[in-house]
Amino acid sequence: MKLSKKNLAQRLDHVYDAIVVGGGAGGLSAAIYLQRYLLSSLVIEKGRGRSFWMQDLRNYLGLPPDTPGRVMLKQGHDHLLSLEGDYLMGFVEEVRDEGDTFAVKVKVGKQESIYPVFRAKYLIAASGIIDNLPQLENMQNVFDYAGYNLHVCMICDGYEMANKRCGLFASSEGQINTAFVLNWFTPYLTVFTHGLFEVSEAMRQKLKDHGYQLVETPIKQFLGDKHEMNGVELVDGSTIALETGLVAMGSHYYNEYLQGLDLEWKGGNLVTDNMCRTSHPRIFALGDLKEGINQVSIAVSDGTLAATAIWREIRRASPPRLWQDNLIKTEPS
Amino acid sequence: MKLSKKNLAQRLDHVYDAIVVGGGAGGLSAAIYLQRYLLSSLVIEKGRGRSFWMQDLRNYLGLPPDTPGRVMLKQGHDHLLSLEGDYLMGFVEEVRDEGDTFAVKVKVGKQESIYPVFRAKYLIAASGIIDNLPQLENMQNVFDYAGYNLHVCMICDGYEMANKRCGLFASSEGQINTAFVLNWFTPYLTVFTHGLFEVSEAMRQKLKDHGYQLVETPIKQFLGDKHEMNGVELVDGSTIALETGLVAMGSHYYNEYLQGLDLEWKGGNLVTDNMCRTSHPRIFALGDLKEGINQVSIAVSDGTLAATAIWREIRRASPPRLWQDNLIKTEPS
Repeated sequence: MKLSKKNLAQRLDHVYDAIVVGGGAGGLSAAIYLQRYLLSSLVIEKGRGRSFWMQDLRNYLGLPPDTPGRVMLKQGHDHLLSLEGDYLMGFVEEVRDEGDTFAVKVKVGKQESIYPVFRAKYLIAASGIIDNLPQLENMQNVFDYAGYNLHVCMICDGYEMANKRCGLFASSEGQINTAFVLNWFTPYLTVFTHGLFEVSEAMRQKLKDHGYQLVETPIKQFLGDKHEMNGVELVDGSTIALETGLVAMGSHYYNEYLQGLDLEWKGGNLVTDNMCRTSHPRIFALGDLKEGINQVSIAVSDGTLAATAIWREIRRASPPRLWQDNLIKTEPS
Repeated sequence: MKLSKKNLAQRLDHVYDAIVVGGGAGGLSAAIYLQRYLLSSLVIEKGRGRSFWMQDLRNYLGLPPDTPGRVMLKQGHDHLLSLEGDYLMGFVEEVRDEGDTFAVKVKVGKQESIYPVFRAKYLIAASGIIDNLPQLENMQNVFDYAGYNLHVCMICDGYEMANKRCGLFASSEGQINTAFVLNWFTPYLTVFTHGLFEVSEAMRQKLKDHGYQLVETPIKQFLGDKHEMNGVELVDGSTIALETGLVAMGSHYYNEYLQGLDLEWKGGNLVTDNMCRTSHPRIFALGDLKEGINQVSIAVSDGTLAATAIWREIRRASPPRLWQDNLIKTEPS
């Protein structure tokens, strides 16, 4: 059921089979599977994750390619509630390993916040990432285009950028290397540093050798109309025409609540086995938080794997269910 | 585009980047990704695979739980054609490894068949499996219930069987062990051997200890109405009431066309790495054909992985695309 400040007290004595941190594609898929395995799960979603911002989910089998990410999430949310899974809007502040259970402290409510603690046997970390965006004075100007034709994922949207004049927005020299992959889709590339870092001579030469432009003047604003970005205005007043853009400025990982736990990391990503189990036997990690490709399809599959591994473990540790009527009947009366 | 006898000659000189054998969830996902990576793909579908028969796709994120498998497949088929992927109804008879390419011989048309040969750099084996069903004199009687409340996949439909009187239909003693997993969902189990095999004393005792019934008389027919099976009539005229059933009689693997190739197998499954690559560097295997859990979500993710691995390899072997206009402009005139 949908939990809120009003009714969550009912669940404070319950030990869930699994608490899922994050109600994106991976977390919802995991919880739907858990409920269908007759296990109990709670999804805790802070809102506005990466897939929420996607305007068109163009490469997920079964949905029309113009399906917004939030429509998929709403469907999954409703699906979960129909299976009697629990769902709470809140922000996971801390997870404490108590041995047999995890204690998960959640901030609920932006005003007059309360801090309930829920418990579960297993923890599924599905809190994902969010892409860093260019920081402009007017952030609404960025939000007007990000997720439309100002993309954040080349695998998702390279196709939409094909042979277009494309801006690549980087915040470090390493990220400029994205240009030499993005050129599979389009060679008409202009790299913007937004004045954030120095570019080495070697990189300048490499860009020049490819014919790609380099713009180091900070950006004043994106230009365009109705979520269709068509260029950039720099702080010096000059403008550069574009047809599309890719932001490659790194990501923020929502993994703060995991920092106190003994887990194996590779950069910002959790290392997992082929069932999405981390180095902690009762913690699983899904989707963008773990190593691998950041795609909805993969997060959904990860949810299947983690839920199945948890089910197998709980099932194997449980006594078998007997058909008592038959046992009684076969005994001598 | 949709290929048929009439127009397929147009593609006989083309070398596809990848030919995908099987237009189920995995194959369609792979081809959609390939097209979006600006690669060329051909999906060859024989029709009526496992997901085509599913009446309700109850655990795939983003689709309402009453979505039939065939609706997902139709959506994927249309999606692929919108991306200019090729799709052909036909049966792959043989694949020959020619070194840099594969030659894929297809039987097209049940009457007046023709046998065109298509070529591709990579092969994606996504031809899946089909569940063996009880062989009754009147097979239509089986088809009336299979995929409705006579299930073939416990992970998919265990939830629907919860606490119901359930028939388990086995064709070997090993398959009877499914009862001791299925009892997670329901203990009201009756095992049917359909007279196909002998049951050991040890297994008889184990079933008895759990209170599960064993029926060794062959089945005459399933009983029920409007795709709702409610029991079984045996050849001796007796009947047994049921509320649901699970067929666990093994599967047929559609892998005959792969038999001549040097591939590593584990039972009927292909061994693959974490990008779904088989032991042959240019052959990938997806979904039910490879090791792992047979689920739509996993097949879809496998398609993402295989297509991405192929794209990376083709991209890295290709010369970089330069922005020629800028190169000309920066040279002295």
